[in-house]
Amino acid sequence: MIDRWEPYLESHAGEAQTLIEQLCRQPSIAAQNLGLNETADLAQSLLDEAGFATQQLKIEGAPPAVYGEQRGRNPFTLLLYNHYDVQPPDPLDLWESPPFEPTVRDGKLFARGVCDNKGEIGTRLAAIHALRAVDGELPITVRWIIEGEEEVGSPHFAALAERYANLLRADAGLWEGGGFDVDDRPEIALGTKGLLYVQFEVEGTGIDAHSGEAPILPSAAWRLVEALASLRTPEGGSRIPGFYDDVLPPTEVQLEALANKTDNEEQLRQAFQVDQFLDGVTGMELRERRAFRPTSNIAGLLSGYTGEGVKTVLPARAMAKMDFRLVPNQDPDDILAKLRSHLKAGGYEDIQVIKLGGAEPVVTPMEHPFVQRILEISERFAGKPPSVTPIVGGTLPLLGALRRHVGVPGLMGPGNAAYWASGAHAPNEHVRLSDIDRAVRFNCTMFDALGQS
Amino acid sequence: MIDRWEPYLESHAGEAQTLIEQLCRQPSIAAQNLGLNETADLAQSLLDEAGFATQQLKIEGAPPAVYGEQRGRNPFTLLLYNHYDVQPPDPLDLWESPPFEPTVRDGKLFARGVCDNKGEIGTRLAAIHALRAVDGELPITVRWIIEGEEEVGSPHFAALAERYANLLRADAGLWEGGGFDVDDRPEIALGTKGLLYVQFEVEGTGIDAHSGEAPILPSAAWRLVEALASLRTPEGGSRIPGFYDDVLPPTEVQLEALANKTDNEEQLRQAFQVDQFLDGVTGMELRERRAFRPTSNIAGLLSGYTGEGVKTVLPARAMAKMDFRLVPNQDPDDILAKLRSHLKAGGYEDIQVIKLGGAEPVVTPMEHPFVQRILEISERFAGKPPSVTPIVGGTLPLLGALRRHVGVPGLMGPGNAAYWASGAHAPNEHVRLSDIDRAVRFNCTMFDALGQS
Repeated sequence: MIDRWEPYLESHAGEAQTLIEQLCRQPSIAAQNLGLNETADLAQSLLDEAGFATQQLKIEGAPPAVYGEQRGRNPFTLLLYNHYDVQPPDPLDLWESPPFEPTVRDGKLFARGVCDNKGEIGTRLAAIHALRAVDGELPITVRWIIEGEEEVGSPHFAALAERYANLLRADAGLWEGGGFDVDDRPEIALGTKGLLYVQFEVEGTGIDAHSGEAPILPSAAWRLVEALASLRTPEGGSRIPGFYDDVLPPTEVQLEALANKTDNEEQLRQAFQVDQFLDGVTGMELRERRAFRPTSNIAGLLSGYTGEGVKTVLPARAMAKMDFRLVPNQDPDDILAKLRSHLKAGGYEDIQVIKLGGAEPVVTPMEHPFVQRILEISERFAGKPPSVTPIVGGTLPLLGALRRHVGVPGLMGPGNAAYWASGAHAPNEHVRLSDIDRAVRFNCTMFDALGQS
Repeated sequence: MIDRWEPYLESHAGEAQTLIEQLCRQPSIAAQNLGLNETADLAQSLLDEAGFATQQLKIEGAPPAVYGEQRGRNPFTLLLYNHYDVQPPDPLDLWESPPFEPTVRDGKLFARGVCDNKGEIGTRLAAIHALRAVDGELPITVRWIIEGEEEVGSPHFAALAERYANLLRADAGLWEGGGFDVDDRPEIALGTKGLLYVQFEVEGTGIDAHSGEAPILPSAAWRLVEALASLRTPEGGSRIPGFYDDVLPPTEVQLEALANKTDNEEQLRQAFQVDQFLDGVTGMELRERRAFRPTSNIAGLLSGYTGEGVKTVLPARAMAKMDFRLVPNQDPDDILAKLRSHLKAGGYEDIQVIKLGGAEPVVTPMEHPFVQRILEISERFAGKPPSVTPIVGGTLPLLGALRRHVGVPGLMGPGNAAYWASGAHAPNEHVRLSDIDRAVRFNCTMFDALGQS
């Protein structure tokens, strides 16, 4: 049976690509406050043309967020989340075509943001155009929020979610999505880890000293090394008392989902250029660690002389940056308090701990009816079981804000045209044109199927 | 009784200053290979004019060293060591007068190298001129070596000392010297600590990774922190097995000398901008630690992201620089071997240890007749007991080379015009004009007295 939107899609081949190219041609770099108002206006007009009642949501200090609502046949309300901002394109000299001039090569569309995530805005829009053309209306009610600061950590999204909670309420949400994996299985992710990001600063002496004075002077670098070493066991576990108190163990269905994921160990080893993973783990143990283990990562270290050769200096100051990835139900502020207590108990009152970021872990349970519905739709669409990630290792601060102020259960589905190794955040970001087509069809299928539930 | 050289010195007031200004006007920056040949030629001509038979000693890859010999009345042979190179003058904008334009302000002569140590070359020359003018010859035989790479660690001095050992043999040596302390007591130092300088390099992943992968990827930064923490106790002691095996305890006379030193704790606290010293030590314990304790210092630390704000990265690489200051009879290569064994035993085979420098500790015993002679001469000259440092915290790699290949017992006497806080290695380096005069007179007295022994 041919889906009823197929004739429209065939006669409008390239509509999604055109929409994506329009968005990608407009630079929108949040880190540089570049082109944000213009891109918000463009996104708003594209939503207008797709039948949404739109407005720009304003928060002091933030670029406008674009909001649209469109009533559908079924009162079931779906909240879509996207962002119109992109990462800076640097290093520019590694791009084979200019980052803001969308270019097709070898069946792929190259542009900054095409994968993360203007491509998804385009495929969602194209599917909505198709369904409206065929049915005169959408099968479900769609609310759509497109912010402009995701690539800088969504610093104003909590304020936005709090102020505009009424506009964002929905039965379920689809966040910035994924795609299909190397085996063409739909990729679905049900949540993200939380984050506590801190900077440690230590001052020993007032000025850098000759290292001949090391017998009598306090050393900032040693204090830092000892304080850091006190935080973690050599096996990677946390030494902070109470760190694991609130950690939920994985459920049976989460473990089953992990076990059924496509094997990508070889690709991971190649991507990170390692011979083996930490402690030589592999298989199910590797998957479990990756999904469910909270971490204590050193992101940066700096003290003293770091140039070529020899300088015999006792550095006045030392600095470290650490991120702790948290799992349900760890709370970043609780972990921060425990970290501070631990350092104090160890006599490290001289170590200043500055919080630079925090976000809650957000995970939708496998058993949630919306999750089960998307799994069914995806499997039917692809003819293959989806590959489900219960928790991804990264963090989306906006999810915590949404959960706190709105409370929509959500997931990341295969509606983006992203595919493995597509250069998100890197030079020559691209998607395959065939993936754009598939994503549009998946979105048509999904919106339609949700309208039948 | 007026010393017989006084009339000469009074009629030639300013001769030392003129010599020093001549030397300081000629830039000679070893780190930048700037002006070294010119300065060697200038120094050689100044030694010629002072009655020395001179030559330039050549070692492949090194700037020429200047050598002079002058037979005196007494066969007692004294080896003088100096260097004609200086530290780079950066940061230039902090100089109140140009670093290579010697300038007098407030009774002080400002110039790069005036304290370290062109000033000493000038005061030694001026004293030799005076004694030759009065007596027609020097009271003792003087051999003088002036190298051009001290400020970059004397990398070719061992080869020079080995090749020209015959020229450098002497009954005793005076190294680059000190001055008089805040109480006008002559400062005498009898040796320097040794040094082992190493760089640790660790590679975890082949490329920087998203820190969300921390559960499964090896972390170079954590490996480095753990390896470093394994090297030292929180109290500052070494955990390297055998580190202290060859350490000689201080002798009674060394401790007595330390006890009789001028108290400068308050000045040290101010200089390093600390409220108190490590572990709150003070008094004799502070002095003992400073002189006799070998150290494990972190001179540099670098890994990952060290800029402003947040970057959630798992760094591929981490680096540390460490210097170990060694006391008699520790040996840098022995300590390096013990360090490597310790890391291997701890499972840290992934930590690469690169030796960047090494030097033996060199200490002349208090009991040595030459030491006792200089102490007597200094006390008679100043009317106050000298302040003796058995071992200074710093390292002069040339001393180890000299001891190995030549074997001249030596010390640092008060013949330099240096005084406390004179800005050696820093902007606005200077000496007091009155200290230049005193240093010339001390050198006359000392050469003369050594001729009477």
